[in-house]
Amino acid sequence: MTGPDFEKSELLPVIAQDDATGDVLMLAWMNREAYEETLRTGRVCYYSRSRQKLWRKGEESGHVQELKSIYYDCDADTLLVKVKQIGGAACHEGYRSCFFRRIDPATGGVEVVGERVFDPVAVYKK
Amino acid sequence: MTGPDFEKSELLPVIAQDDATGDVLMLAWMNREAYEETLRTGRVCYYSRSRQKLWRKGEESGHVQELKSIYYDCDADTLLVKVKQIGGAACHEGYRSCFFRRIDPATGGVEVVGERVFDPVAVYKK
Repeated sequence: MTGPDFEKSELLPVIAQDDATGDVLMLAWMNREAYEETLRTGRVCYYSRSRQKLWRKGEESGHVQELKSIYYDCDADTLLVKVKQIGGAACHEGYRSCFFRRIDPATGGVEVVGERVFDPVAVYKK
Repeated sequence: MTGPDFEKSELLPVIAQDDATGDVLMLAWMNREAYEETLRTGRVCYYSRSRQKLWRKGEESGHVQELKSIYYDCDADTLLVKVKQIGGAACHEGYRSCFFRRIDPATGGVEVVGERVFDPVAVYKK
């Protein structure tokens, strides 16, 4: 077996990491079609579970992810993509990373640690 | 709502990242109990889907993960833990990261890019 195993599950989780900074940007999902399109085009394509269709990341915002390298894990059921995040922000809320909320283990309290790169209202016109 | 939303799903994916190097180490899962234990003890506890029970990472190998910080994403359905990986390797195959296989987008070929830190046969006595 070489490559991710879409027989195990039709959808595999994909971790997107900023190739330059090492920041973990987001987690999304790919089916085989999204995976093959990503390899073919060099732009990351996910599968949207909510919309139930291919999700060419950035198709609406312009904030596409250029594929720098792609890895799969020891169980062949998770992917890691290292990307160049165009526009500087992966999160639809305008933050560089979707993981912009840190939890304090002692109190359970939450602190916003990311910086907002764009205004989602302006980008998505919603 | 503050914190990860275990009402959305009993099991949420968790990305483990090396706090010192930024390497993405592995993807695993937590239920609420594993999450709360992780916050309480400062050692990462997952939920093993295959064994269907709490998985105190390193309980067999000694290669525990000390929690440095913990984040959740904009959809409150994915966690990111930054850890100190004791023993230097997160992967049960002895590699630092579970993502030690890189895919060549042009050919689909696979190259092992990680270095083996320990011999799994010696560690797990199997």
